[in-house]
Amino acid sequence: MGTAALAFTLWTRHLRHNPRNPKWPGRDRFVLSGGHGSMLLYSLLHLTGYDLPLDEIKHFRQWGSITPGHPEYGLTPGVETTTGPLGQGFATGVGMAIAAEHLAAEFNRPGYDLIDSRIYGIVTDGDLMEGISSEAASLAGHLQLGRLIYFYDDNHISIDGSTDLAFTEDRCARFEAYGWHVQKVADGNDVEAIDAAIRAAQADPRPSLIAARTHIGFGAPNKQDTSKAHGEPLGNDELNAAKQNLGWPLEPRFLIPEDVLAFFRGAVEAGARAEQAWQECFDAYRKDFPELGAELERRLKGELPKDWEAALPTFPADVKGMATRAASGKVINALAAKIPELIGGSADLTPSNDTTIIGSPDFQKSTRAGRNLHFGIREHAMSAALNGMTLFGGVIPYGGTFLVFSDYARPAIRIAALSHIPTIFVYTHDSIGLGEDGPTHQPIEHLAALRAMPNLTVIRPADANETAQAWKYAVSHRTGPVLFALTRQAIPTFEAPNSPTVEKGAYVLKDFGKRKPKLILMASGSEVSLIYAAAEKLAEEGIAVRVVSFPSWELFEKQDEAYRESVLPGKVKARLAVEAGVSLGWERYASSVISVERFGASAPYKTIFEHLGFTAENVVARAKELL
Amino acid sequence: MGTAALAFTLWTRHLRHNPRNPKWPGRDRFVLSGGHGSMLLYSLLHLTGYDLPLDEIKHFRQWGSITPGHPEYGLTPGVETTTGPLGQGFATGVGMAIAAEHLAAEFNRPGYDLIDSRIYGIVTDGDLMEGISSEAASLAGHLQLGRLIYFYDDNHISIDGSTDLAFTEDRCARFEAYGWHVQKVADGNDVEAIDAAIRAAQADPRPSLIAARTHIGFGAPNKQDTSKAHGEPLGNDELNAAKQNLGWPLEPRFLIPEDVLAFFRGAVEAGARAEQAWQECFDAYRKDFPELGAELERRLKGELPKDWEAALPTFPADVKGMATRAASGKVINALAAKIPELIGGSADLTPSNDTTIIGSPDFQKSTRAGRNLHFGIREHAMSAALNGMTLFGGVIPYGGTFLVFSDYARPAIRIAALSHIPTIFVYTHDSIGLGEDGPTHQPIEHLAALRAMPNLTVIRPADANETAQAWKYAVSHRTGPVLFALTRQAIPTFEAPNSPTVEKGAYVLKDFGKRKPKLILMASGSEVSLIYAAAEKLAEEGIAVRVVSFPSWELFEKQDEAYRESVLPGKVKARLAVEAGVSLGWERYASSVISVERFGASAPYKTIFEHLGFTAENVVARAKELL
Repeated sequence: MGTAALAFTLWTRHLRHNPRNPKWPGRDRFVLSGGHGSMLLYSLLHLTGYDLPLDEIKHFRQWGSITPGHPEYGLTPGVETTTGPLGQGFATGVGMAIAAEHLAAEFNRPGYDLIDSRIYGIVTDGDLMEGISSEAASLAGHLQLGRLIYFYDDNHISIDGSTDLAFTEDRCARFEAYGWHVQKVADGNDVEAIDAAIRAAQADPRPSLIAARTHIGFGAPNKQDTSKAHGEPLGNDELNAAKQNLGWPLEPRFLIPEDVLAFFRGAVEAGARAEQAWQECFDAYRKDFPELGAELERRLKGELPKDWEAALPTFPADVKGMATRAASGKVINALAAKIPELIGGSADLTPSNDTTIIGSPDFQKSTRAGRNLHFGIREHAMSAALNGMTLFGGVIPYGGTFLVFSDYARPAIRIAALSHIPTIFVYTHDSIGLGEDGPTHQPIEHLAALRAMPNLTVIRPADANETAQAWKYAVSHRTGPVLFALTRQAIPTFEAPNSPTVEKGAYVLKDFGKRKPKLILMASGSEVSLIYAAAEKLAEEGIAVRVVSFPSWELFEKQDEAYRESVLPGKVKARLAVEAGVSLGWERYASSVISVERFGASAPYKTIFEHLGFTAENVVARAKELL
Repeated sequence: MGTAALAFTLWTRHLRHNPRNPKWPGRDRFVLSGGHGSMLLYSLLHLTGYDLPLDEIKHFRQWGSITPGHPEYGLTPGVETTTGPLGQGFATGVGMAIAAEHLAAEFNRPGYDLIDSRIYGIVTDGDLMEGISSEAASLAGHLQLGRLIYFYDDNHISIDGSTDLAFTEDRCARFEAYGWHVQKVADGNDVEAIDAAIRAAQADPRPSLIAARTHIGFGAPNKQDTSKAHGEPLGNDELNAAKQNLGWPLEPRFLIPEDVLAFFRGAVEAGARAEQAWQECFDAYRKDFPELGAELERRLKGELPKDWEAALPTFPADVKGMATRAASGKVINALAAKIPELIGGSADLTPSNDTTIIGSPDFQKSTRAGRNLHFGIREHAMSAALNGMTLFGGVIPYGGTFLVFSDYARPAIRIAALSHIPTIFVYTHDSIGLGEDGPTHQPIEHLAALRAMPNLTVIRPADANETAQAWKYAVSHRTGPVLFALTRQAIPTFEAPNSPTVEKGAYVLKDFGKRKPKLILMASGSEVSLIYAAAEKLAEEGIAVRVVSFPSWELFEKQDEAYRESVLPGKVKARLAVEAGVSLGWERYASSVISVERFGASAPYKTIFEHLGFTAENVVARAKELL
């Protein structure tokens, strides 16, 4: 009710969209960052003619409806991103603007502004208080993302009460400091003032914040401008009072006057016209620029280039080997040459994460075609922005930081998992193997914590070849995020396998001895070479032992029972898992675990591994106990 | 090297501390938020006479040293908080300032400024980019925490290279927008200019940022002002070149001229004098205000009031029961009446988290004695600030939000766990039982992800009485954080137990039938009443079944083998765990789990529980399958 006039002005006068084709690539994006106002969005979608019948609105927040408490991407047509956890929408929109700028630089040509989308949003006090928005706003200002136009729903109320309780900073001055174009609208119900502000924002090269003084629960005579209008339904009495106050009939409960509906439904015809004009422009573009046209079409469809898999490197067996982060860097560059939509960066750990696409410029305000992103020390905004880039389409983005800092990014990783957004998270320095930086930088519980998240695929490759396969999986898996855990330290490279292994989640790396195995050693990542060395010693003593490389639990769980039984036969009860992290969950597969049940230590990594029991000798000893 | 002059000026002219008693309550606090500069801090501690011998500095970042890569609280005398994950130090210092203001308001009297500490810090580009610092800075400005004086080490360099790559906002204007007092020092090596800025900051009632233009790797002729001076050691050649450049002998490698040492070691005598003066003031205060004096002494010692446990309520058995968040609210108020150091708040979910101390004012800039904190929608800064309050001492702080938003707070929870800081996290709305708000707000993987963290105690009480016991544990457990997972919805209250149960982690709530149990049902939180109902049905069919309430894995793991065996006898193989979250890890205790292996749904909570199998009928059916 408080932002109805803002939304009305935007949706009826500016937003380019086609309700009958919510996926039209030429559309603007609308992000309702304060997702608790979901009914505003559902109302707009219904009124303008999306496939959201009134019955769904009547079933608001009910089992099986497409009108959940907070908007969910993929569930409801026209919902551009999942919002509710505050700040996520704000930062996701920044990613959408990055993708739009990048594609525009790549594909637009004089007379052909095919990529011309703006990103509109409504953001709340809560969004502005959340740190992620600060990170994203600073980045947007730095990158001068002029396509971003956000309304700040300045209603002075949060759940605790007045924003004076906790939020008295000068928001407008803060956004000016970020390099944004800031306007104030004194009356958030003044349609013409809002309209003028939008026009000024569109004309300004900077990202725009339009701070509009609104009134939460506008029109509800007893609850307007109170926190009661925030966290609770109005209730029947107050709803009736509001209807009376606003000159609206009390019945029917769901009333849309015909002229109102006709007015809003004008969006259907306007949308069709807009899409048709865009399509005509695209057709002409294809004639003038046939290669670019075909390429843009492919990318907007989300299809990979033909034979892209041929670009994947294989690495020769090598005892000295290389760090999997280094292997990842090589794979990124091999793929980037073949897959121009691959674009990524790091939260200021570019040299450590090995995320650079060599030879490509940085993505900066004057070099929009660059494919190397500098997100700054902003893991959270980076991750949400990656989600936004993926959602915008036409790009396959990835972002790097240390695995330990997945904690900073977790809420955005969760949005990706919940919304089936295929963002790629390139996390390096994946264990105590990080060494001297010490416990603050050594992930211990992170693999377990990430594996706990539904619909997130965690892959911890055992060597350079598994890393290449992990990338192969990530680039082709388009229904959820994929996260790599990569080593800082060099680890041996095994013989490249003849058939895909990582996509199976776990596989028999080697059976030592000719008899059936009496013992299974299993590990992920850097510990695979360790159990391999232990198995060699056990084999020397005549023990038949199987070495299982286990890069991904989620992928293993997707295999059929027969395959799983073939890797981990039920008969073999002696099973030792080795992983440089907490054991939590390994009980599913192993009868015993060599793990790290404490925080790490600051020392050279080999010293730490030794002190914490990650030696072939200890693996051998623990394995023998199991026999 | 870049901030040596800043640190010199602060440590030799302003910082009040006693190297021979690092825990002197009257000291100022120094926070090195950019923990990667740890050697600066170790050097200062060594030079000023803390128990940090030169040998420890020679063993920088080596196994067993007290000089890890990043400073760790509790490991090294004089390190006030663990830093390294950027932004944590910044926000932790804000909490220290809150505690100082609160204690000052409670205890200082005219002529007796016993609580007079300032919080100094050095913060970096990375700190300012991280969202948590934005949250904390906004809060500090709102609360006008004038005791905070932070230097901004404005060296223009981060790991990727120039800060121009990603960080071009106007930092000073941004902090002015937060309500800070901002000064610039053009030359970060100008001791007198720094000194003047500190004096001006001390005189200003607002929190202060002193932005000093520094030069990373100052004096290293080839690496100064480059990112090479950030992430890598200088190396021998460059170190020698730097020594030559600065007019310093090449040998010995560790040289502290005697006059330099004598000058710095003046801190020992100055510290002793300062503490003695403070002690004399305290002695006089005790005479004039004997009760206050005794109370302050108790609180600074971290001792709980006598008989505080008597304040804990018990709740009568009640089938209708109450939400555990409501029970927690009652316990908070019962304890708060007896334990004046209990102080807390919420990240703008006060009415939902039930965290209000009824009758106490809010903690605001004009009401510093208030015990209700409004952190705003800033879960991350709240959590770090709670850590800082705990570290400052004299208070037992708690903070609330929804369990799902533990993701936003995770890096600060980790600092608490790693540093053995006993912060209390009051997380409510702990499952799909949250209902209509839907999957974005329903924790699914969070219990598992939190249980994965070493030294964090997670407690999910089954009813109001377990909630009281959980609080009892949290208030008395002083070596690590405790986190509650509390329901939104009402759940039955069981008979209050005769002896402590929660502190055991798991216990036999009831054995149904007179024979030894053939089946164990186990659950935490809201699912305990569900398995109880299922057990009643099973018992009606003559099945001997045990119901185990399992509020805390960590506490159960601390029990001896005999106790654990008594609760979960090895002979009983049929064991069904029921928890409204992912099953990850329950394999440790159970042979089968009724869990939630997907994201939740938006609907009335009873509907969700039914659809996802959380019914007595389904528990009975699954249990019978196990038999």
